[in-house]
Amino acid sequence: MTTTPPPDFDRETAVHARPGEPGTYDTDLPGAWKVGQGINGGVLLAVTARALAAELGTPRDDRPGHPDPLSISAYYLSTATAGPAVVRTETIRRGNSVSHGGAELLQQEDPAADPAPRLRVLAAYGTLGGQPDDVRTSAKPPALAPVEQCIGSDAAPPEFRAESPMLTRADLRLDPSCVGWAVGAPSGRGEMKGWFRLPEDRDPDPMLLLMAVDVLPPVSFDLGVIGWAPTLELTAHVRASPAPGWLRVIHTTRNVAGGHMEEDAEIWDSADRLVAQSRQLARLPRQS
Amino acid sequence: MTTTPPPDFDRETAVHARPGEPGTYDTDLPGAWKVGQGINGGVLLAVTARALAAELGTPRDDRPGHPDPLSISAYYLSTATAGPAVVRTETIRRGNSVSHGGAELLQQEDPAADPAPRLRVLAAYGTLGGQPDDVRTSAKPPALAPVEQCIGSDAAPPEFRAESPMLTRADLRLDPSCVGWAVGAPSGRGEMKGWFRLPEDRDPDPMLLLMAVDVLPPVSFDLGVIGWAPTLELTAHVRASPAPGWLRVIHTTRNVAGGHMEEDAEIWDSADRLVAQSRQLARLPRQS
Repeated sequence: MTTTPPPDFDRETAVHARPGEPGTYDTDLPGAWKVGQGINGGVLLAVTARALAAELGTPRDDRPGHPDPLSISAYYLSTATAGPAVVRTETIRRGNSVSHGGAELLQQEDPAADPAPRLRVLAAYGTLGGQPDDVRTSAKPPALAPVEQCIGSDAAPPEFRAESPMLTRADLRLDPSCVGWAVGAPSGRGEMKGWFRLPEDRDPDPMLLLMAVDVLPPVSFDLGVIGWAPTLELTAHVRASPAPGWLRVIHTTRNVAGGHMEEDAEIWDSADRLVAQSRQLARLPRQS
Repeated sequence: MTTTPPPDFDRETAVHARPGEPGTYDTDLPGAWKVGQGINGGVLLAVTARALAAELGTPRDDRPGHPDPLSISAYYLSTATAGPAVVRTETIRRGNSVSHGGAELLQQEDPAADPAPRLRVLAAYGTLGGQPDDVRTSAKPPALAPVEQCIGSDAAPPEFRAESPMLTRADLRLDPSCVGWAVGAPSGRGEMKGWFRLPEDRDPDPMLLLMAVDVLPPVSFDLGVIGWAPTLELTAHVRASPAPGWLRVIHTTRNVAGGHMEEDAEIWDSADRLVAQSRQLARLPRQS
């Protein structure tokens, strides 16, 4: 009899340095974060970012280590599946306050072929704790109903939850104002927002922020366009280490055109700080 | 006696395939686009994008060519100077509707050392003309005073213009509402906007849009923070081929914190379409 271990985001997204191959990390992409056809894009970003954190975070040649992603840009190349994967990192430049790296996430689809690239990444890493304290943010936190009035994934149809284990893995509570699509009455505003945390006892950190920028349903749902909206590109800026507690996440789109849309995400922490911003370019699902 | 050739953006940003070295392009970074310490970041982006357009735009192995940047992410590594440079491209994946590539822009600083990387880029290319026509954009074009009431660079102090030839190279007219910084009275809104075109008889195209996302003075000027705001990362999405005529460009920031700010740019064409969006993460100048 096998027992399922308790959920643990750090274990699920862990990377392991491959002995004898500097810069190469093995990982096991978590089936618990499957959504629709593949693994959640934010989880893939966090896995790849962990490999870069291991690489750039280690001091070398009298240069300090830079463990925290300040900016990371990911191009999604093909659909990742649960199971073994490898991250190959490249150190581009080590600076005094910022270091740059690149990475690719690959999976062996066919034993006879080269591994298939899933994700390509460029990033700048630094040290979040060392940033100046001045804050002149004019953005405002999203207006959200209290957590207990928001809608959890237990409201989703069972067949939908069975196909997308991520819906039960993430503790996501959507604001009632943006779940009209579930009953055929989308708001049409192009907004998706809610509360997010992990169900296990774990505080948010920069790696969880990278996951959280892609945790909401596509904002196109709120426009009445239901379906898979594959990410072409996603760039996230981590602006501060988040305080413990619930995160508030909001996605908006303002430019739906040419078969694509941009999705802007903001993540606010319990101390009312805008701790991460991201923008992605996604392909709009074809409407039937 | 030498004569200065007339300004020509295409010639200034041209790349030339290096014989016998597939994927490698030579270029000559234009001194006319110097601003402050280095060459304008948008021009560097356009030069690098041209090399990728040459590479990914050429059909190969029964795969179609994809000449237009849909999304391009650039990490700025060191200050580029006028003169010879090389772009090394990598074809990551050729798809049916989208192809992916990477590139680095390098300059030889010291004949005895390896060339210094200026820029690293990842990008997705496609065909802008082939996109669906549906437009559901909720964003509105920026409110701008008529061109003839806006402020051109001839209003800038002569010593400032001498140090930054780009100010006379670009035909930029700033809206009067966001030039208060020039007389010590910034609006504090975090907004910079104006009209932009090239002085030569040349209509905008996707490559000019990539230049234009970084053509305005830093939005931090409007917050009263005067000084060089170096770009760490800039991602641009080109959403449509622009119509002929003036472009309207607006930069805003909503999150100034931790010594960094995000700068969101929108470019609107003369047909009132939002043809490009970009976001950059820039380091805030230290205030004296």
